[in-house]
Amino acid sequence: MIDIRSDVMTLPTEGMLHAMTAAPLGDEQEREDPTVLALEDDLTELLGQEAAVFVPSATMANQIAMLCQVERGQEIVGERHSHMFRYEAGGPAFLAGAIVTGLTGTNGVFTGDQVREIAQIRDSEHRPRTALALVENTHNVSGGRTWPLAALDDLYDTCDELGLAVHIDGARLFNAAVALDVPPRRITGRAQTVAICFSKGLGCPAGAALVGRSDVLAPARRIRQMLGGSLRQAGVLAGAARYALRHNIARLADDHSNARTLATLLAEGGLPVDPAEVDTNFVFLELASLGIAREEAQARLRSHGVLWSNAHHPTVLRAVTHLGHSRADLHTAAARTIQALTSD
Amino acid sequence: MIDIRSDVMTLPTEGMLHAMTAAPLGDEQEREDPTVLALEDDLTELLGQEAAVFVPSATMANQIAMLCQVERGQEIVGERHSHMFRYEAGGPAFLAGAIVTGLTGTNGVFTGDQVREIAQIRDSEHRPRTALALVENTHNVSGGRTWPLAALDDLYDTCDELGLAVHIDGARLFNAAVALDVPPRRITGRAQTVAICFSKGLGCPAGAALVGRSDVLAPARRIRQMLGGSLRQAGVLAGAARYALRHNIARLADDHSNARTLATLLAEGGLPVDPAEVDTNFVFLELASLGIAREEAQARLRSHGVLWSNAHHPTVLRAVTHLGHSRADLHTAAARTIQALTSD
Amino acid sequence: MIDIRSDVMTLPTEGMLHAMTAAPLGDEQEREDPTVLALEDDLTELLGQEAAVFVPSATMANQIAMLCQVERGQEIVGERHSHMFRYEAGGPAFLAGAIVTGLTGTNGVFTGDQVREIAQIRDSEHRPRTALALVENTHNVSGGRTWPLAALDDLYDTCDELGLAVHIDGARLFNAAVALDVPPRRITGRAQTVAICFSKGLGCPAGAALVGRSDVLAPARRIRQMLGGSLRQAGVLAGAARYALRHNIARLADDHSNARTLATLLAEGGLPVDPAEVDTNFVFLELASLGIAREEAQARLRSHGVLWSNAHHPTVLRAVTHLGHSRADLHTAAARTIQALTSD
Amino acid sequence: MIDIRSDVMTLPTEGMLHAMTAAPLGDEQEREDPTVLALEDDLTELLGQEAAVFVPSATMANQIAMLCQVERGQEIVGERHSHMFRYEAGGPAFLAGAIVTGLTGTNGVFTGDQVREIAQIRDSEHRPRTALALVENTHNVSGGRTWPLAALDDLYDTCDELGLAVHIDGARLFNAAVALDVPPRRITGRAQTVAICFSKGLGCPAGAALVGRSDVLAPARRIRQMLGGSLRQAGVLAGAARYALRHNIARLADDHSNARTLATLLAEGGLPVDPAEVDTNFVFLELASLGIAREEAQARLRSHGVLWSNAHHPTVLRAVTHLGHSRADLHTAAARTIQALTSD
Repeated sequence: MIDIRSDVMTLPTEGMLHAMTAAPLGDEQEREDPTVLALEDDLTELLGQEAAVFVPSATMANQIAMLCQVERGQEIVGERHSHMFRYEAGGPAFLAGAIVTGLTGTNGVFTGDQVREIAQIRDSEHRPRTALALVENTHNVSGGRTWPLAALDDLYDTCDELGLAVHIDGARLFNAAVALDVPPRRITGRAQTVAICFSKGLGCPAGAALVGRSDVLAPARRIRQMLGGSLRQAGVLAGAARYALRHNIARLADDHSNARTLATLLAEGGLPVDPAEVDTNFVFLELASLGIAREEAQARLRSHGVLWSNAHHPTVLRAVTHLGHSRADLHTAAARTIQALTSD
Repeated sequence: MIDIRSDVMTLPTEGMLHAMTAAPLGDEQEREDPTVLALEDDLTELLGQEAAVFVPSATMANQIAMLCQVERGQEIVGERHSHMFRYEAGGPAFLAGAIVTGLTGTNGVFTGDQVREIAQIRDSEHRPRTALALVENTHNVSGGRTWPLAALDDLYDTCDELGLAVHIDGARLFNAAVALDVPPRRITGRAQTVAICFSKGLGCPAGAALVGRSDVLAPARRIRQMLGGSLRQAGVLAGAARYALRHNIARLADDHSNARTLATLLAEGGLPVDPAEVDTNFVFLELASLGIAREEAQARLRSHGVLWSNAHHPTVLRAVTHLGHSRADLHTAAARTIQALTSD
Repeated sequence: MIDIRSDVMTLPTEGMLHAMTAAPLGDEQEREDPTVLALEDDLTELLGQEAAVFVPSATMANQIAMLCQVERGQEIVGERHSHMFRYEAGGPAFLAGAIVTGLTGTNGVFTGDQVREIAQIRDSEHRPRTALALVENTHNVSGGRTWPLAALDDLYDTCDELGLAVHIDGARLFNAAVALDVPPRRITGRAQTVAICFSKGLGCPAGAALVGRSDVLAPARRIRQMLGGSLRQAGVLAGAARYALRHNIARLADDHSNARTLATLLAEGGLPVDPAEVDTNFVFLELASLGIAREEAQARLRSHGVLWSNAHHPTVLRAVTHLGHSRADLHTAAARTIQALTSD
Repeated sequence: MIDIRSDVMTLPTEGMLHAMTAAPLGDEQEREDPTVLALEDDLTELLGQEAAVFVPSATMANQIAMLCQVERGQEIVGERHSHMFRYEAGGPAFLAGAIVTGLTGTNGVFTGDQVREIAQIRDSEHRPRTALALVENTHNVSGGRTWPLAALDDLYDTCDELGLAVHIDGARLFNAAVALDVPPRRITGRAQTVAICFSKGLGCPAGAALVGRSDVLAPARRIRQMLGGSLRQAGVLAGAARYALRHNIARLADDHSNARTLATLLAEGGLPVDPAEVDTNFVFLELASLGIAREEAQARLRSHGVLWSNAHHPTVLRAVTHLGHSRADLHTAAARTIQALTSD
């Protein structure tokens, strides 16, 4: 069985497991865990920021970011299919009490003018104050698409002008940096806050971080404590994260290449897949023109020995490449997929 | 000065003031105010519902409706310019903790299929559960537009099928009923909850109600108490409301007629106003083609003795007719507006 | 039937009704209601404060006060039987998200040292920060007891030193001022915020106000809007309030005198009532020593033509005097009560 | 330096680290992590419950427990120094919106009658409904004290009768079970929910669990997701937890014996320590009678090579024994402490 459902399913390698058990430990709540302290330094340097807080998951990093800089009743503007809006159990409203306003984007990307149109309507008592623009990069629902740097710069310019914060949901930030061939700080340096994830493509079993401006993150550790995200000897996970930063970023290019290969093979095999839409490690397969219902397609694929996941749209399947896949795995996956969906 | 800014600015008439002072009173929190009890009966009958709660404002009625039937982290779907989303200070997120998802509508109206597309994506742990569809009727930002009955029935059918509640933000519900020439219960009878307002076109100084299914409203009085909306001798305001229900609904047809007259006169005077878009008592005047900035237009109008308000869109002015206006007032307002905006 | 259940049940007098209908009106949300504006001036002068916001109820005034100056997760310290803690439907936690810490007081009064003991335990991440001390004056559950000025000054001194805000829940503030024979500002001038009520002893059908420091109240009108407490022609209620401020404060001394008379008559009639505990307009009758269950006592009283209410403690009945009672009413009430509870 | 500050500072042993790297892994969010699944079975069996959810910390377990069974505005009753009330950053109010009512206990223990007195005052609209009683066992602020079984049974009986849930904050539950010499399920079997911690005495670097009735925990995984507590390959931490359950529970008796030894040695050395108050692994040292300020005492102890922590009360020091301490360590710690605090 070849499992191409998601890069969240990576298993830690031997090298990573060794890094976890060898990491020096201490009580992170007392700021005595040397591995966490070193990771924080790694991250502020890497992302061009001032402060970092280690957390169990990217979802928690996102939620703490909102709780640090969005007051209840204020407005968050982002692409309408943003993971934070659609797949975090309503957290921005449940926890931060934020009104979320979804913009219609292109491949997850929206413009400064779209934000301006919303934010400029002000009123002392009735209108929610627009507080923050959310950038998800890469953007999950659109298929791991990257924000072009010019679009990002336009958004930063607009938000600076309007006095809005920018939060980067960078659960797959390093995929974007590798795809755009820029250092991560080129993407994140102007944001107020950035969430990154060590699971997914970086291959850690768990762990994430919230990175950003010192003043914005001043309450972050207290909020993390309240949410239950403050660990004690967190260095066991931070050790995996440090290993991943050293060994697993550059190699994301292989995952991207593998994804393009998979897309190309599927297209050559007659399936409705567009390799031009593969920016990073996601491949979308549109079932509508095949006349196969998604449940049926999933059953056929499973019986042919390949596991895809369901994408957001009800007629689309999704494959995600990661460090657990060899190039040969993708060739096998392509062949099995073609056979499953084209023979009858 | 002729003030056509808004129907929220109506002053109580002599008859209404008399009704207020003549109303029998008691402690509403102990259910001993006979005027409130009578009003509740009036409302359940009028709107084809089971229970009613008197509240100080339509905003509170809307917020209690959400707190009664939307759990924190659940999703409210409505037209993206809905008053509840854009002009209630972020209340649905601040108070109910709801994720609001704005749909792109036509004149404030959206379809059952648009709701279905959102609500059908289910997931046990990540997706916010879609709990409620919000209908604003008449729809403020689009210009007091009404929901066609077929569109409303389509929405009720879809929501029944999907197990979603429907809330009617009926701050100007009676304008819709009069414009459509149907009894109000034809619009509201299938909803779980309905908010109505006695201020605005009905002419009361304050007061509103939340009306709906008994089971849904079971916690409504406790929530009202907590929000600070439980009054003691509420009959002084309920007396005005009862007066308005008897005297001020049918006459809304005059306001609508006046609004159409105003629009027609303005169009005849060469101003960019479309009488065909006047469903009820709102008139929109689009300044863009005149090349006059809104602040400048407002200054000119004021100096000519007529007060318009700013609409949601930054180049649009809004007039709203109400019981304080005679037909002659509207003729005068039209003349002054034409003079202010066309002479230089 | 003589009803001595509560001063919330007062009905507006002819003079007050006339003041309501004669009040000049406008749109309060646009700051155009002259009666509300005048009332705000009355209140800041009377209470030695800087800003005032008219609201429908004292509960809303209390809740807005918390939302203005207590962040979620911060701590409110007050007497453990405070109305805000025990009888506002959990509002301080539901709305402001505040941890409430109840102190054991004497007649509702606690000391600066009790606050200091709580507030001095600080910790960057674990301890809720103590933000505010709550004074309820007069204190409801203890029987309308007043805060001695020395105790109040001690609390202000401590809170100033510790950087805590003081909120006065003054639902019956004017009873305290009259009982202590001081101007209200002597009690309220050093507080950050004060909630007062125009219902209860002042005799209005509804209405209350939040009064306090300008900077603290900066977000108050927006919060009031969100909660649904912003009315339009609020002058109809503010007119009653202004009338009450002029005519119904000094006369509270009569209510206090009536309450002492009632207590004395009951004690003379052999009932367990202590006139020395009557600071203002409450009388408590302890049923325990009579061996009569409260439901039985209530039934007997009702059949004898007098209505008491249930106090917080399950064996205690409560009477509250108000402007609807003549001195003769209290004599009759006393006689009926003695007969109901002592004959068998 | 001998560090007796807290059992949260334990480091994973070689055996535990091996268990972590050897644990079979999968995606916990998809219920595919076999180690987590096995741990859940271990826990329901051990605690006499039906369902278990693995979480990063005991704080998160406590918060999810509240979010599962306490509605906003409802009341939690517990000992007034409970960790959840005093040391979880206000979480029960911030997250669950619960009114917390603190009872005055003895060594952290309160009675069913104390709960009954609070819970029996009911009212449809004003009183917060009492939803849950909180038992912290062992109780931190009182010095690691255990709940006698009779007291616990009395509480369960009362809560069953009143329809209240019982939550056990069992951050040190296994210390209580070992000290009382009963199986853990004897303590937890009647509770609705139980939070346990694998850090602290069990020696894991991180990890905790919420265990309880299936119906109560139905929303727990969704809430965990929203808070950011859902990990992917959580088996790395669950492997440590399973190891701890097998190897580190019975040995807590050594920690308790060590704590009593430390207390006895200190008392024999003339320090104000009462060995009779040592139920488990905490030792309190009261500085008041020594006339040494806490900061001064801490400085002296540090310079003598022993680290104590500050207890809740400002004149008390706290030592906590754990698996990182040999018996000889405690003898050394005692000698250094006596020297530091009795010589001048």
